[in-house]
Amino acid sequence: MSTLPPHLANLVGKPVNDIDTPALVIDMDAMKRNLARMAEFAKKHNIRWRPHAKLHKSSSLAKMQIKAGAVGVCVQKTSEAEVMVAGGVYNVYISNEVIAPAKLARVAELTQKVADHGGQIAIAVDSTEGVIRLAQAMTEARLGNKTGATVIDVFVEIDVGQGRCGVEPGSAAVTLVLEIRKHPALRFAGLQAYHGKAQHMRSAQERREAIAKAVEAVVLTKKLIEAQGVAVELVTGAGTGSLMLEAASGVYGELQAGSFMFMDADYAQNERDPAQPQFEHSLFVKTQVVSTHGTHAVCDAGHKSHAIDSGLPLVHAFDTESELDYFNGGDEHGILRAAGDSKRLPGLGRMLWLIPGHCDPTVNLHDTMIGVTGGLRHGTVQRIFRVDARGALT
Amino acid sequence: MSTLPPHLANLVGKPVNDIDTPALVIDMDAMKRNLARMAEFAKKHNIRWRPHAKLHKSSSLAKMQIKAGAVGVCVQKTSEAEVMVAGGVYNVYISNEVIAPAKLARVAELTQKVADHGGQIAIAVDSTEGVIRLAQAMTEARLGNKTGATVIDVFVEIDVGQGRCGVEPGSAAVTLVLEIRKHPALRFAGLQAYHGKAQHMRSAQERREAIAKAVEAVVLTKKLIEAQGVAVELVTGAGTGSLMLEAASGVYGELQAGSFMFMDADYAQNERDPAQPQFEHSLFVKTQVVSTHGTHAVCDAGHKSHAIDSGLPLVHAFDTESELDYFNGGDEHGILRAAGDSKRLPGLGRMLWLIPGHCDPTVNLHDTMIGVTGGLRHGTVQRIFRVDARGALT
Repeated sequence: MSTLPPHLANLVGKPVNDIDTPALVIDMDAMKRNLARMAEFAKKHNIRWRPHAKLHKSSSLAKMQIKAGAVGVCVQKTSEAEVMVAGGVYNVYISNEVIAPAKLARVAELTQKVADHGGQIAIAVDSTEGVIRLAQAMTEARLGNKTGATVIDVFVEIDVGQGRCGVEPGSAAVTLVLEIRKHPALRFAGLQAYHGKAQHMRSAQERREAIAKAVEAVVLTKKLIEAQGVAVELVTGAGTGSLMLEAASGVYGELQAGSFMFMDADYAQNERDPAQPQFEHSLFVKTQVVSTHGTHAVCDAGHKSHAIDSGLPLVHAFDTESELDYFNGGDEHGILRAAGDSKRLPGLGRMLWLIPGHCDPTVNLHDTMIGVTGGLRHGTVQRIFRVDARGALT
Repeated sequence: MSTLPPHLANLVGKPVNDIDTPALVIDMDAMKRNLARMAEFAKKHNIRWRPHAKLHKSSSLAKMQIKAGAVGVCVQKTSEAEVMVAGGVYNVYISNEVIAPAKLARVAELTQKVADHGGQIAIAVDSTEGVIRLAQAMTEARLGNKTGATVIDVFVEIDVGQGRCGVEPGSAAVTLVLEIRKHPALRFAGLQAYHGKAQHMRSAQERREAIAKAVEAVVLTKKLIEAQGVAVELVTGAGTGSLMLEAASGVYGELQAGSFMFMDADYAQNERDPAQPQFEHSLFVKTQVVSTHGTHAVCDAGHKSHAIDSGLPLVHAFDTESELDYFNGGDEHGILRAAGDSKRLPGLGRMLWLIPGHCDPTVNLHDTMIGVTGGLRHGTVQRIFRVDARGALT
């Protein structure tokens, strides 16, 4: 692992004011409260949690989550899994389909690697061809490796309403389960049943209905598989928008929610389900005003600093006097206008904090996240987190 | 500069097929034709070109542009300028406002650094406070440096219709010019007059009207400055959507267009002005189908692989049989549906090429760009370009 550039390494212990802009900053106190709430929630519901590391792409934060009670992490990409393992995270689930033989060879290699640390790699499949290619890669890796008989955990993904990957619930899943069981290097580990669309449905009622249907699809599929004499050990899924519903379902055994740790501006716009733990925003883009005008001010954070796929960022208000709206100013700029009754615009050089619309792709734009304790106004830099899986696309 | 990871270094000379997905790929033949067209256009109009390196964020490509006739490059960020200079590009214009004293100290340091190579740093300003802070940073850098009297070129930015940075055309610009001339380490170099909004106006007529107004504002401001006995040596601006208009204006002396080299899907949707050179798409995201369904297929490129601020990517069609539409599948996936009369969906593992909606923030998501010659189908990897200013935000 390469060392931090001096301007970052020297920042630890310094006041928040010293952080150059734009920069991605974690309010560590808020993040730790979110982690504790999630751990408590999972304990209360007697359910495992395996947060999605596609959010933070940081092996350091993954280890912090495992220390707080997570059983491991999910990732979406082979290269993300490699970064996690290299960073000392040995329980990694690639909750996505991998098809390219060259990538599957890398997945198989990882299964051997984590076995030495008592870890386990898991992966999702949604096609017979995918199962066969995975089995082939595992067999080849076993031949080349003296430690021999490592096994990869395989989850069959069913489409519970997302309309993206996954086979139809029911018999198509059974076919895949039976195919998996033909191959000694593969172990059928359960069902992947994630409803991505449900996460961002605004009303609690819509989300309840969507997850009720997902649960129905899972129950049906589970029964059909069990009718073949095969146990379905685990159903895994759920995101920050719906986790209280899967947790209460009695069918899901593992929650994959990741965003709760940082809380997107978008998620905060969901009507809150009373059963959901209350999570706080803990990830911010620190920015600075570089140009002022009668009608607006311009800051130095645009969509190369934060993702805008789920809407523009919100301007964090420390007090009611500083209400500002953020408008799209392109790749490198944000346009700020007074919101509500406020007529006040920030002056040149003024520091502001943006709450990203969507944290996952925002983190992926940054090499580091700067962890601060004691608040954003008067706090101190405690730790620099490297986004070691940033840009891990393959 | 760190070396390339082995899987990339070993790719040179290999067929296009061997490129793992998702990956950013340059069709080098098309890119070079675009460069040649731009060079020819500028020569014909007797105008300088200083392409914006915020597009490619690569010092290697910047040097290729300078070799083709560019006078240097523009950047938006101090850290981008630092990367360019470190990569051997010594004529760099930061076409943006820099306010933070710590950053201005770095800018001043760069002016000293490039002077040793016969180069020049330039910067834009739009406030008196900005000019004073810049002068202070330059004075301090001069004190600490034996070589002494380096000067930074300063452009006064006027707002010609973008509504972002820049002072109002007219007397406000004169005030700034006079302020600049008070400071011996600053040289008034001319006017920055870029109309970002005009670039993406769809009809040629709208663009003509917008740039006509910009030209008017420039002429007015220039006259007022000259009335003070100060020459306006250069007016710089223009983007790929409007460059033929600024080139024909008789007022602009330098074109900042950058995107022409790669050509966004968004730019290609502009009604073409007959006076504009014809540029080709030369930047693609190579992707692969990882999941197939009756209604759609899913590929492994989502908006962590390409920016979607200016719309979703187009699927490149090698022939009329392969018409596909790309739909948003989230951070890591794309949903593909048959377009037009086509009923055909691509099979598992099929390779596809996406034309990004907006190349600038797309490049910023990748560590490398893979240069291919001989076409995307049967070509060969010729060169790997490091995106050495990727993530250079400050």
